Amino acid sequence: MEKVGIGLVGYGTVGSGVGRLLHESADEIRLATGKEVTLRTVCELSPQRRALAPPGVRTTADFADLVNDPEIDVVIELIGGIEPARTIQLAALTAGKAVVTANKQLLSQHGAELLQTAEDHGTFLRFEASAVGAVPVIKVLRESLAAAQITGVMGIVNGTTNYILSAMAQSGAEYAPTLARAQELGYAEADPTEDVSGKDAAAKMAILASIAFHSRVTLADVEHEGIAAVTDVDVAHGRQLGLVPKLLGVAKLIDGRVNVRVYPCFVPGEHPLAGVSGAYNAVFLESETFDSIMLFGPGAGGTPTASAVIGDVISIVNTAPGGYIGNCTCYKALDFYPGADVVSRFYLRVQVADEPGVLAAIAGVFGQEGVSIHSMQQTGAEDSAQLVLVLHPVREAAFFGALSRIAALPAVRSHPSVIRIEGQDDR
Amino acid sequence: MEKVGIGLVGYGTVGSGVGRLLHESADEIRLATGKEVTLRTVCELSPQRRALAPPGVRTTADFADLVNDPEIDVVIELIGGIEPARTIQLAALTAGKAVVTANKQLLSQHGAELLQTAEDHGTFLRFEASAVGAVPVIKVLRESLAAAQITGVMGIVNGTTNYILSAMAQSGAEYAPTLARAQELGYAEADPTEDVSGKDAAAKMAILASIAFHSRVTLADVEHEGIAAVTDVDVAHGRQLGLVPKLLGVAKLIDGRVNVRVYPCFVPGEHPLAGVSGAYNAVFLESETFDSIMLFGPGAGGTPTASAVIGDVISIVNTAPGGYIGNCTCYKALDFYPGADVVSRFYLRVQVADEPGVLAAIAGVFGQEGVSIHSMQQTGAEDSAQLVLVLHPVREAAFFGALSRIAALPAVRSHPSVIRIEGQDDR
Repeated sequence: MEKVGIGLVGYGTVGSGVGRLLHESADEIRLATGKEVTLRTVCELSPQRRALAPPGVRTTADFADLVNDPEIDVVIELIGGIEPARTIQLAALTAGKAVVTANKQLLSQHGAELLQTAEDHGTFLRFEASAVGAVPVIKVLRESLAAAQITGVMGIVNGTTNYILSAMAQSGAEYAPTLARAQELGYAEADPTEDVSGKDAAAKMAILASIAFHSRVTLADVEHEGIAAVTDVDVAHGRQLGLVPKLLGVAKLIDGRVNVRVYPCFVPGEHPLAGVSGAYNAVFLESETFDSIMLFGPGAGGTPTASAVIGDVISIVNTAPGGYIGNCTCYKALDFYPGADVVSRFYLRVQVADEPGVLAAIAGVFGQEGVSIHSMQQTGAEDSAQLVLVLHPVREAAFFGALSRIAALPAVRSHPSVIRIEGQDDR
Repeated sequence: MEKVGIGLVGYGTVGSGVGRLLHESADEIRLATGKEVTLRTVCELSPQRRALAPPGVRTTADFADLVNDPEIDVVIELIGGIEPARTIQLAALTAGKAVVTANKQLLSQHGAELLQTAEDHGTFLRFEASAVGAVPVIKVLRESLAAAQITGVMGIVNGTTNYILSAMAQSGAEYAPTLARAQELGYAEADPTEDVSGKDAAAKMAILASIAFHSRVTLADVEHEGIAAVTDVDVAHGRQLGLVPKLLGVAKLIDGRVNVRVYPCFVPGEHPLAGVSGAYNAVFLESETFDSIMLFGPGAGGTPTASAVIGDVISIVNTAPGGYIGNCTCYKALDFYPGADVVSRFYLRVQVADEPGVLAAIAGVFGQEGVSIHSMQQTGAEDSAQLVLVLHPVREAAFFGALSRIAALPAVRSHPSVIRIEGQDDR
């Protein structure tokens, strides 16, 4: 039986998960590929981690030992970050080896260079685990749905923020103590910035949008907004409106142009994304061909991510030799569609002085700016009142124009809370 | 550029959808495969349908014209049913052509023979569209999750029954008028037996369980129960308990043995499957490797099914030549686990005479049979009372033993309603 040698760079949580799965699932992998897929060498700087490599597997601290080994066919890079990961991947690809990685930072910033290098050397670059952990969204987009014209991708692609927002929705608690609790429980890191700012989600959305729209979207192209400004008051108002808070990555193909953003928003309670709670991830795909498809599962974790890495290895081994490599799915350089021109639905909460004429003033501004109100609710508290408005779909520039005028009205007490509403049918 | 010729058998809704997608998505398919994939011949008995074939495509009423054409590489069979579909597939495979099909009846009854024929002739048999329409569950199981040990598959795999149960849960209406309404709206056929009896779902579950567990499960191995006995009263009680009614296909791997059944059941409102409403389908996969993954989407419809067919064509074209064919994923002949030994949760409603000692008698029977009660609710109505019980997980044989004794108690007024509860954590 033909042999396939694996070189693994980085033997942390995911790396050791890959090592274990390659061993435990050897029978299944043999059946799925017709080949003997074996972990040959682990490259790892830390001697402690190196010592964890399975018996019979060679270890090294120098990635050149992998790149120069003719018996290594696939290099799996799991160290993350830009360098030295980029150098290692480029060296492996240039040596004609296939590369599998979970590195979202690198792919979302240098994907085009890496894919081109793979293509130039007739080999594969696969990165399923960089997007949604165990959930094979990239493979489904690239292969199963290749003939479907995808028009939208909505993703809950960050487990930490989904855990926090789900907990806020369930408990009614505020953001800060919920984050602290998530940190205690290990759902949020000590420095949660990357997650709560939406940057992690933005990197994943750049990758997903590139594949879904066959375009080139990098991290820098994805505007992102985090969840720190989501208040318990808004979450409670959302609940009364049947809406659930989510941090969504939203990628849209509008008139042949691409808009990719990450922001906190409300989705209707009956939308499939609303039921994705806790640390789970989900990606909701829209297309005229199939209406909508959602993939749901654990977005992180050593073993789930390792499972996605092995799925990529199997895919490569199954395709080679002779099969189509197809790295360059990102072949159209599509223009970007400005966020200001996107038509969105908005939820808006304004704290106003409880005095005559305030509502008329706000409604008047919206009317002048062509913004149409879908529903309005007023609740009083002492001398101030709270207005909660849901607007009809509106061009964002018009909405934000009106908003800045409203925020400047003398009767408006604090900066309005604004949350987009996604996933609602146009009825 | 290398050419791939397609022969299409059956030019109905799905067939014409395939024809249209092959044409409209020619660019995408070329990018995804590096080859020119062209519809060459349509084989169709009906002259009216034959006339709908795209210009430039040859038509015939004789499938031998496809099988004998050296320029046809892939035969797509979309006529459904056992014969002549089986003969056509066997002839095409024997001629070394790859076969793609949406035929769940054939695959769930003659899958082993067809897969072996494909393997013997070094070619492919693919059948994604036979299971969950546009949702690529089979590909994900075979490739992305090949190294994960799947322990459970729960599927909402029939749109008609899911539409009916969703409508009953929403409106509170009874089964019969809801079915009639579904027929009016086109969600149920004039003769809905295949769907409402659970047989359609059983065929799909046979296919999914075969792939998930690498075993051989045929339609005959899948016990199925339909939805006609689900009453509005039970749906209403379920709602009070936070439970949603679903017709589920449930496949479990227990101690290395397989149990696959289809039955109406309740799932907790917060379970991802609970949110899958209307004509949508979903498959929920469980594994120690990745915890759980759910795939959701349209389970039927011409274009979604056509999209799955094209996904299979792309997969074949990408893999050949030289890649691994891997038809025989169904390689273990696993034993079946008897339903009587499965441990399940049950909801039970009993109509009893409102007289002293009834509750004690029922509780006594359960106690003697080792069945433990989780919760009990009694509501009175004139001279009779209704008992709604939720039981702790129990071996099914013990439960049904107790049930037949309870049904025979003099104070029990009618046959008890029994609905399993799935998807609840063991807390």
